[in-house]
Amino acid sequence: MTEAAKSNKAPRTAITPTREENFPEWYQNVIKAAEMAENAPVRGCMVIRPYGYAVWENIQKHLDAMIKAEGVDNAYFPLLIPLSFIAKEAKHIDGFAKECAVVTHHRLEANDAGDLVPAGELTEPMIIRPTSETIIGDVYSRWVQSYRDLPLKINQWANVMRWEMRPRIFLRTSEFLWQEGHNVFETHDQAEADARRMIDVYREFYEDYMAVPGYIGAKTPDERFPGAIETYTIEAFMQDGKALQGCTSHNLGQTFSNSADIKFLDRDGTLKHAWTTSWGLSSRTVGALIMVHADDDGMVMPPKLAPHQVAILPIVRDDADTDKILAFCDELQKQLAAKGVTARTDKTEARSSDKMWTAIKKGVPVRVEVGAREIAEGKLTFTRRDLGKDGKKTATVGEFLSSIGGVLDQMQKDMLDRAREKMKAMVTDVASLKEMRDFFAGEKIGGVRIDYKLIQDSEEFEAIKKDFSVTPRCLPFDDEGQKVIVAKAY
Amino acid sequence: MTEAAKSNKAPRTAITPTREENFPEWYQNVIKAAEMAENAPVRGCMVIRPYGYAVWENIQKHLDAMIKAEGVDNAYFPLLIPLSFIAKEAKHIDGFAKECAVVTHHRLEANDAGDLVPAGELTEPMIIRPTSETIIGDVYSRWVQSYRDLPLKINQWANVMRWEMRPRIFLRTSEFLWQEGHNVFETHDQAEADARRMIDVYREFYEDYMAVPGYIGAKTPDERFPGAIETYTIEAFMQDGKALQGCTSHNLGQTFSNSADIKFLDRDGTLKHAWTTSWGLSSRTVGALIMVHADDDGMVMPPKLAPHQVAILPIVRDDADTDKILAFCDELQKQLAAKGVTARTDKTEARSSDKMWTAIKKGVPVRVEVGAREIAEGKLTFTRRDLGKDGKKTATVGEFLSSIGGVLDQMQKDMLDRAREKMKAMVTDVASLKEMRDFFAGEKIGGVRIDYKLIQDSEEFEAIKKDFSVTPRCLPFDDEGQKVIVAKAY
Repeated sequence: MTEAAKSNKAPRTAITPTREENFPEWYQNVIKAAEMAENAPVRGCMVIRPYGYAVWENIQKHLDAMIKAEGVDNAYFPLLIPLSFIAKEAKHIDGFAKECAVVTHHRLEANDAGDLVPAGELTEPMIIRPTSETIIGDVYSRWVQSYRDLPLKINQWANVMRWEMRPRIFLRTSEFLWQEGHNVFETHDQAEADARRMIDVYREFYEDYMAVPGYIGAKTPDERFPGAIETYTIEAFMQDGKALQGCTSHNLGQTFSNSADIKFLDRDGTLKHAWTTSWGLSSRTVGALIMVHADDDGMVMPPKLAPHQVAILPIVRDDADTDKILAFCDELQKQLAAKGVTARTDKTEARSSDKMWTAIKKGVPVRVEVGAREIAEGKLTFTRRDLGKDGKKTATVGEFLSSIGGVLDQMQKDMLDRAREKMKAMVTDVASLKEMRDFFAGEKIGGVRIDYKLIQDSEEFEAIKKDFSVTPRCLPFDDEGQKVIVAKAY
Repeated sequence: MTEAAKSNKAPRTAITPTREENFPEWYQNVIKAAEMAENAPVRGCMVIRPYGYAVWENIQKHLDAMIKAEGVDNAYFPLLIPLSFIAKEAKHIDGFAKECAVVTHHRLEANDAGDLVPAGELTEPMIIRPTSETIIGDVYSRWVQSYRDLPLKINQWANVMRWEMRPRIFLRTSEFLWQEGHNVFETHDQAEADARRMIDVYREFYEDYMAVPGYIGAKTPDERFPGAIETYTIEAFMQDGKALQGCTSHNLGQTFSNSADIKFLDRDGTLKHAWTTSWGLSSRTVGALIMVHADDDGMVMPPKLAPHQVAILPIVRDDADTDKILAFCDELQKQLAAKGVTARTDKTEARSSDKMWTAIKKGVPVRVEVGAREIAEGKLTFTRRDLGKDGKKTATVGEFLSSIGGVLDQMQKDMLDRAREKMKAMVTDVASLKEMRDFFAGEKIGGVRIDYKLIQDSEEFEAIKKDFSVTPRCLPFDDEGQKVIVAKAY
């Protein structure tokens, strides 16, 4: 606990502990206070509550449109993958497919004691997809026959499972939601361009919708997706200084087309193995959104992904005014809808201050109070969530309606700018491994940037990795692959 | 094979066999020719191809908006259900949870021979959800505390699994996609009203978007969802005379709130068990769409659910015209998009007649041909898929653009009208069980409608059920529960 928090003068915060006091616990409590998700009665899994799921729906809506604009179609492939498919790929799936849900029976039967037990053993066990390269590759081997069938660009929105030993809501759960794109090309260069293009689509999505910037670049060879010849990533930094891999885009070379036998008759009349890419973004993105933007009063939603952008708070001081106030709120909500702004009126019987704190904890971008006085004066008081009391303004209803679009746009922009400032401060340049060790042994949060050559084949770097639980996050494009960022990561 | 088909004068059809020759095989071939789906390399599962998945996306988009308009929020619950949850409900799940995918291990390990085998046996097996009443009920038992928490209305879009012994694409697959709504209320009457309201929402969706009408009513007690006190259904009739249950809406009474212990403190200060409903519509809906609308030339898409509503077919007779024609097509596609009409230009190198047949087999509502002559004359020829050659019209580009919206609306309406005529002809009124037996022994396709009293506790009816594989489909609302429709069903 900080001195400030221990003192009586400590400002009241809606979330305890604060970020500084205990970041992991603060994170859980922000999610709980905003009613975004909770642990499921199934080990390692989560229930995504309506307010959290609405964020995921907005992520899906916008990202899906961006993916389709790249000429990619959606499709759906089976949840279960035969063990033999995995075995074929075993060398590529080290590290995640070992821990997976294995289906071994296809029936429940009552035994002699009357208890339900598994029955109908499968001749071949199946696993719940941890990712779909193997099964999609098998299907593609039949779809792809000629260069005329290429490029083949398909995306799937799906649930996947990786048995997690240390689950954390949104960040690492046994089941999670994601999209996985699987593209096929004639040449290495087309696949490479595609993998880079898709990481740039993700960058645009992260910056423009999530208001989350990141270090964008290539993974070092040991951190690549197994089987990939290049893995590109967006590494965002959370407020506690840890990095979070926001998504990945892989150039899979001919690895998967070799093992699944995806061949095409080329323009020159010869049969060739195709070149494939895969790229994905998952529901852990919601965890990044929280850890980048939330504060000690709870969530702060970027307007473009907010389940609703305006919270209308009826302030009823005299019951006789209730109907009039609610009617006014309904009308205001309608007028906002006509402007493309989503709003929700808090019609609960809660006290006014509780309504306000609910909206704050949920991170609704703008809240507006409507009481008898406001209606009489024709003026509204509205507050931007990210600016606190400084964001409070008074305006006529007309002014409010004509300015709200701009207010939301400005908030979206400000959130990105602030996040970008924080991100830059999270990475410290170091000139040697000695400086790197000193940095991680010190108080400062975040990661370091260092010449890539200095960590290659270095025993001291391996020691630092072990001593401080840090890993190479990426070789940023901005440094043309000459430097590497090293940090702790989620 | 019919006489007509055997004769040399038989008209050429794009799909063989025809509906009359072999309906089940025709169905598979329509799906194949339209590239909508195919059998997966996993037994009983399907791959939904981009063109089929785009239909499902349109179903989701429109139905989701209708569900949200009822005040229902989306959320997401876990894929896996602990065996103990199922055991608690065992009496309700007869008939579908017996055949399910059982997860017994959470790891794959190499054995001494180097083969991957299941390891890490779970202390409690889990099943992949066949439906989510049990797990959602468990979560609701914590969410629902007071009457203030009610009504609680939540929907989930998800994949589910029921191990199918005789799988058929879209209609009956081990894994399928659906939405399942789970609502909670204070009283029996509210739950009953909700179950009826949701079947009416489905009716509206079926009629307005799918252009598929149905007989709407209650299931007889033996056909209800296990545990439900009422199950409402839409029974559509396919072109072969079999019924297909299009969706269901259940009043679950207090069955699931009793077993999951969903209790609330009522307004009178006493603790009561809540009343719940559940309602779902699945990807088998796409199968109904095909079996109601497709003809011997392939699929016919209702314009509101068509992946694209207009197929633009460039007719290139002289290579020198290619660029000009394609530019014209692009411009036309843009102008259609500006009118809210989705179009796709066939830019493949296929022959003109092949392009036409591709559009026909995919059931694109309107196809328009663009060649050098059309451009020179400023006139287009367009054809409605459902009218065949009679639907061919010529118009200037301006006329085409201003009339296309109306053409699509009219086609949507005509498809519903035609389907309604067919549906009516599918049900024959009978006055006795003798007449019923004669009907099913005869040549006429479809089902019968009979006084409900006549089949209750009737040994002869049980014999008819067995002899002709028919079942009571529903007690239509229109007959106020006095009559029952009996038919074969998918």
